[in-house]
Amino acid sequence: MAKINANYKKLPGSYLFSMIGKKVREYQEAHPEAKIIRLGIGDVTQPIAPKVIETLHSAVDEMGDASTFKGYAPDLGYEFLRSVIAEKDYRDRGCDISADEIFVSDGAKCDCGNIQEIFDTGNRIAVCDPVYPVYVDSNVMAGRTGAYDAAAERFENVIYMPCTAENGFVPDLPEEIPDLIYLCFPNNPTGAVIKKAELQKWVDFARKHDSIILYDAAYEAYISEEDVPHSIYECDGAKECAIEFRSFSKTAGFTGLRLGFTVIPKDLETGGERLWPLWARRHGTKYNGAPYIVQKAGEAVYSPEGRQQVREQIAYYMGNAKIILDGLKGAGFEVSGGVNAPYIWLKTPRNMTSWEFFDYLLSEANVVGTPGSGFGPHGEHYFRLTAFGSRENTVEAVERFKTL
Amino acid sequence: MAKINANYKKLPGSYLFSMIGKKVREYQEAHPEAKIIRLGIGDVTQPIAPKVIETLHSAVDEMGDASTFKGYAPDLGYEFLRSVIAEKDYRDRGCDISADEIFVSDGAKCDCGNIQEIFDTGNRIAVCDPVYPVYVDSNVMAGRTGAYDAAAERFENVIYMPCTAENGFVPDLPEEIPDLIYLCFPNNPTGAVIKKAELQKWVDFARKHDSIILYDAAYEAYISEEDVPHSIYECDGAKECAIEFRSFSKTAGFTGLRLGFTVIPKDLETGGERLWPLWARRHGTKYNGAPYIVQKAGEAVYSPEGRQQVREQIAYYMGNAKIILDGLKGAGFEVSGGVNAPYIWLKTPRNMTSWEFFDYLLSEANVVGTPGSGFGPHGEHYFRLTAFGSRENTVEAVERFKTL
Repeated sequence: MAKINANYKKLPGSYLFSMIGKKVREYQEAHPEAKIIRLGIGDVTQPIAPKVIETLHSAVDEMGDASTFKGYAPDLGYEFLRSVIAEKDYRDRGCDISADEIFVSDGAKCDCGNIQEIFDTGNRIAVCDPVYPVYVDSNVMAGRTGAYDAAAERFENVIYMPCTAENGFVPDLPEEIPDLIYLCFPNNPTGAVIKKAELQKWVDFARKHDSIILYDAAYEAYISEEDVPHSIYECDGAKECAIEFRSFSKTAGFTGLRLGFTVIPKDLETGGERLWPLWARRHGTKYNGAPYIVQKAGEAVYSPEGRQQVREQIAYYMGNAKIILDGLKGAGFEVSGGVNAPYIWLKTPRNMTSWEFFDYLLSEANVVGTPGSGFGPHGEHYFRLTAFGSRENTVEAVERFKTL
Repeated sequence: MAKINANYKKLPGSYLFSMIGKKVREYQEAHPEAKIIRLGIGDVTQPIAPKVIETLHSAVDEMGDASTFKGYAPDLGYEFLRSVIAEKDYRDRGCDISADEIFVSDGAKCDCGNIQEIFDTGNRIAVCDPVYPVYVDSNVMAGRTGAYDAAAERFENVIYMPCTAENGFVPDLPEEIPDLIYLCFPNNPTGAVIKKAELQKWVDFARKHDSIILYDAAYEAYISEEDVPHSIYECDGAKECAIEFRSFSKTAGFTGLRLGFTVIPKDLETGGERLWPLWARRHGTKYNGAPYIVQKAGEAVYSPEGRQQVREQIAYYMGNAKIILDGLKGAGFEVSGGVNAPYIWLKTPRNMTSWEFFDYLLSEANVVGTPGSGFGPHGEHYFRLTAFGSRENTVEAVERFKTL
């Protein structure tokens, strides 16, 4: 008899954003007149940049002509895209990464979720708390986390690294030694960043203990301050211990186009085994490449016009972040993030739980945010707001906050 | 210390198509003047249909306008696409499948590779021999197959179901009872089909033994004969034992656009556990949807103009298949398939091994095909040709065969 993967039964409740969607739908159905503003899920709202649209049209025309039609993409992604990524995102920043260390994919979420497959199921993971749920849930599904302790809201075999106001939402090095360390900076959900000297300590720690760092840099384009690394490969020795994930979703508004990439240095190994061939094999066996037209769109993001246009979009969102940050501070809320990241991390008022505040904010202000507790127990009493709304909605949401 | 997933080490050699690519590249470099014709990998060559191109342009414009921009797609895919699939591919054929039983994805290869994740790693799989490598390799990676016996070219814990000239390349019901049964009809690589009464026996077998059938119907659009089922759900009781995979790759030339879907009936369960919520959870956790523009392109395939245009493309390819089939028969080769499928299954002459014939064909005729042995030991002494070339190349390839 076929048996299901019983690890799925360990997953507590629904996936966070599905639950939020359900609550919002139910509220809207009960209050059809309510003008709900969504600053919850991290989805962008600005249209794709004109240069990228122009490129998409031209790539679509190529697909309609026998002489330029493209079928299956190369396993790792098109050379034209991998080359420009290696140059602009890495070598221009002094990181020695080559085109064939870039694996193009349909997004960082998929890659972050799938990367654990190339590691032993006995490996122990460390994650920040709070944390983007995909890192933990994908490991639960693979059977790497042990049982769930509902009272503690923790899996028994996961090392949780608290991110608190006290440590500036940057975790301390763990006392137990993990095999795999998930880090995400600029951070989702807290919007915190890590300074280069601080990240170097993690690289040194991983090398000392033969751990692998899985570094999610999906929000690097939002970094505005000096001394904040855009890539983990800015740290000495990172090529010997780190895999990096990048995304076009937030950088260029590709949430609905789907494009990202993973960097695995050719010589990165653990226990004498290189990781590059494993991920290449996984890519070749279970994946069939991002669409040609989307890879062309990705290339256009690196053109002079494309860069200028996506920079303006990011500036727009970061203008929203400043409006939220300043507005909520002025209204007496305790807030952080929002300077190098599109996320604002809000301490709930009057010791409300995160979900209590979610319901309160939805019903009293018709504003949707993301309960911090959905990202882990240390997210309890926190709340995530995103800068991805329209300017008008963002201003309006802040006004509504002031009336609470 | 981080440890790799040692199951990857069990995988024999490279992924078949990577190896072919390497050999062809090396030959071309050594013989730059050779005009190589590729009838190997199953990639289409005809451009995307005009109606689909027109729809892509209009969807691209939507992405460039704030009022119509689309971010993250719904987890299961857009309703507009799932509805038309449920209607045209299922209900119009008398199959009671609803829109919310359709999971849109970036292709059948990914879904066929990922589906095993929702099942226990102790489950035993049955596959045809020869077989599309993804089914086995994805299970090897998950640790479901046991060790590889290089002499037998078999994994110790897999049930292999021989497909031979004697059984018309349709396997007999296995004597051992599998938990998961992979079937693919019209078949890749043999081009064979299964009649409805025959497929009903598999459904009955699966229901009797509580097995789940994983039915790959990626080539259903090529069926030309009566009494050949387009969907496993044409069989009584299939909704209680089968998952079906479909693809736009071969149906509408989307190999470079990436679109497919998986059907999991809402009530399909095993051991009292429903499979639909598991796949929904996997989709929500590790996947982020096919691009909006590609889903719109998929919808256009079902429009009257779209259907007419993709039918013409399929007729074109099946014209190629007939040229290969008739030409090779006339030249004294033993061939099958090619009537309800874009694949022609060729017995190698003079008892050559498949790879011997590959090298022989590449060097003597500059034609690339796929060695049957790459699909399993019962593919040895066979060779796969595809109908996806241009007419000109197909005719030329057949002429070259005649000179061998």
